[in-house]
Amino acid sequence: MNNKAWTLASYPAGWVSEENFKLVESPVPPPKEGEVLVKNLWLSLDPYMRGRMSQQKSYVKGVEIGEVMTGQTVGEVLESKDAAFKPGDKVLTGLGWQLYGCAKGAELNKVPEGRAPLSYYLGCLGMPGMTAYFGLKEIGAPKAGETVVVSAASGAVGSVVGQLAKIAGCRAVGIAGGAQKCDYVVKDLGFDACVDYKAGNLYRDLREACPKGVDVYFENVGGEILDTMLRLMNPFSRIVVCGLISDYNATEPYRVAMFRSILVNRIKVQGMIVFDWKDRYGEALKALGGYLAAGRLKYRESVLEGIERAPGGLVSLLKGGNFGKQLVKLA
Amino acid sequence: MNNKAWTLASYPAGWVSEENFKLVESPVPPPKEGEVLVKNLWLSLDPYMRGRMSQQKSYVKGVEIGEVMTGQTVGEVLESKDAAFKPGDKVLTGLGWQLYGCAKGAELNKVPEGRAPLSYYLGCLGMPGMTAYFGLKEIGAPKAGETVVVSAASGAVGSVVGQLAKIAGCRAVGIAGGAQKCDYVVKDLGFDACVDYKAGNLYRDLREACPKGVDVYFENVGGEILDTMLRLMNPFSRIVVCGLISDYNATEPYRVAMFRSILVNRIKVQGMIVFDWKDRYGEALKALGGYLAAGRLKYRESVLEGIERAPGGLVSLLKGGNFGKQLVKLA
Repeated sequence: MNNKAWTLASYPAGWVSEENFKLVESPVPPPKEGEVLVKNLWLSLDPYMRGRMSQQKSYVKGVEIGEVMTGQTVGEVLESKDAAFKPGDKVLTGLGWQLYGCAKGAELNKVPEGRAPLSYYLGCLGMPGMTAYFGLKEIGAPKAGETVVVSAASGAVGSVVGQLAKIAGCRAVGIAGGAQKCDYVVKDLGFDACVDYKAGNLYRDLREACPKGVDVYFENVGGEILDTMLRLMNPFSRIVVCGLISDYNATEPYRVAMFRSILVNRIKVQGMIVFDWKDRYGEALKALGGYLAAGRLKYRESVLEGIERAPGGLVSLLKGGNFGKQLVKLA
Repeated sequence: MNNKAWTLASYPAGWVSEENFKLVESPVPPPKEGEVLVKNLWLSLDPYMRGRMSQQKSYVKGVEIGEVMTGQTVGEVLESKDAAFKPGDKVLTGLGWQLYGCAKGAELNKVPEGRAPLSYYLGCLGMPGMTAYFGLKEIGAPKAGETVVVSAASGAVGSVVGQLAKIAGCRAVGIAGGAQKCDYVVKDLGFDACVDYKAGNLYRDLREACPKGVDVYFENVGGEILDTMLRLMNPFSRIVVCGLISDYNATEPYRVAMFRSILVNRIKVQGMIVFDWKDRYGEALKALGGYLAAGRLKYRESVLEGIERAPGGLVSLLKGGNFGKQLVKLA
């Protein structure tokens, strides 16, 4: 039985290309004592992966050249040398871009079967959903009647942010690229409005969509969208800095012009990484699972078939080419 | 009896110059019913005044052309048509850049005599002191053992910030312009270190002065100093955005390059205006007055004699030419 794994071949300068990856085949190793052999079923592709393909200082170490690309998967246990797992168990793993892998039991989390599709534990019930949940609740802290704006609104995180804002009694406004995504955000997800940043009138369109200004901005994108939002923030508003995807492929970072708005409007701007709330994942899972079961949380996936397509999927994701949570179906 | 008042003659483009002001003489008006006639003794010059000489949106309305320049004074009551005040009372006023003025009693605050020099109520016991107190305590929230950095460290706000940080058990590091100010900050105010931003090695010098990184940065300056500090902030650190003086005279704002550090390090960045805590001024006054009486709070004033010198004093202040709290002695 052979494994296929995508390793990092080189660090990209600027945009990621498929040449930065190398597909390696090797025999599947047997699990050692305390380890579990997992067959990966679903691989999640996420913007943070760009940050790991770098030697720049970040909140976790980057991937080294020749190492398997990092990533979350949902898989099935094939063989276990940890008493807590048995063949057939479904698990959430950090095994990355490969078909099979061994991990210590402590590094795996069991995923329940039957409640929701397994792939959802990589999306609205996984890291992106929890990012939306804790970022909005703990930093954005929206009050009923306030206006919440989220960028990358049709994506895995943004779509949950806006729907949670609606559940909290807020006006939810999305920013997305293209009419199709904007339609989806309003008609399917139930946002009050969605602005197409590709339409060329970002400031004017956002001002129209937010007649009472903006109280919470959930930032996934950065760049000119951030500067435009800084012009629209209300006094005592909050900005959740969750992602700056427009910077990830830039060789020079975007330089923010409207920093002064933070002073004038006494804005609170706070960066977040979902791992900071890992002790409270259970709370988020319960809340999000409840909304999903009640039909109050809509969710869309974009699926690529086969591990071979992973690099192209990430390249496209970083350019906004996905529509919904980006997954690779491995088996 | 004639009044002399500096009015705004024109809005500056870029740096303020003395030609932006016009000195106007006129008879002193008698107080109307409910008003108090005050003879100003001390005028405070502060960086925020640059913001008022502008039609740009800010947290309060700017000064109109022909209006008396805004500013705080300490004065003496000459005549009162408000039963709460009597001639001889010393009061804190918002009468601005003039020798005499009438104000409603509700717009004045009595200042006690004998506890501290009257001018201190424009400085370490006034708005600058309260800015330092609430910004550091409520947003910076330093814990003993942490490192606190403050820019414009020899100024009215910065000098109090660093001394309060020491009282809280922190390492206090200042940033100031020139060896003389840095010496004062360390030797007289008791900071652990002070970096001269004019010496040309800002990043290296700050890194040496902050061997454990920075947990709280109290920002009075902005510009390249802000970008340099963003490279030195620790995970979960806080930035109090109190002033961006380097931007106030710029026709184009400085563009911040290191915004990404907010995400990577989960920094909380929050703007502040001291008026937001006006209900708690008594608390700050009690604390600061206590430290002053106990000799734990050192304070330095820079005094110009005569109202004629006010415009030149502000021009110099905005270029960092003052050394300590800038005042104009009016009588």
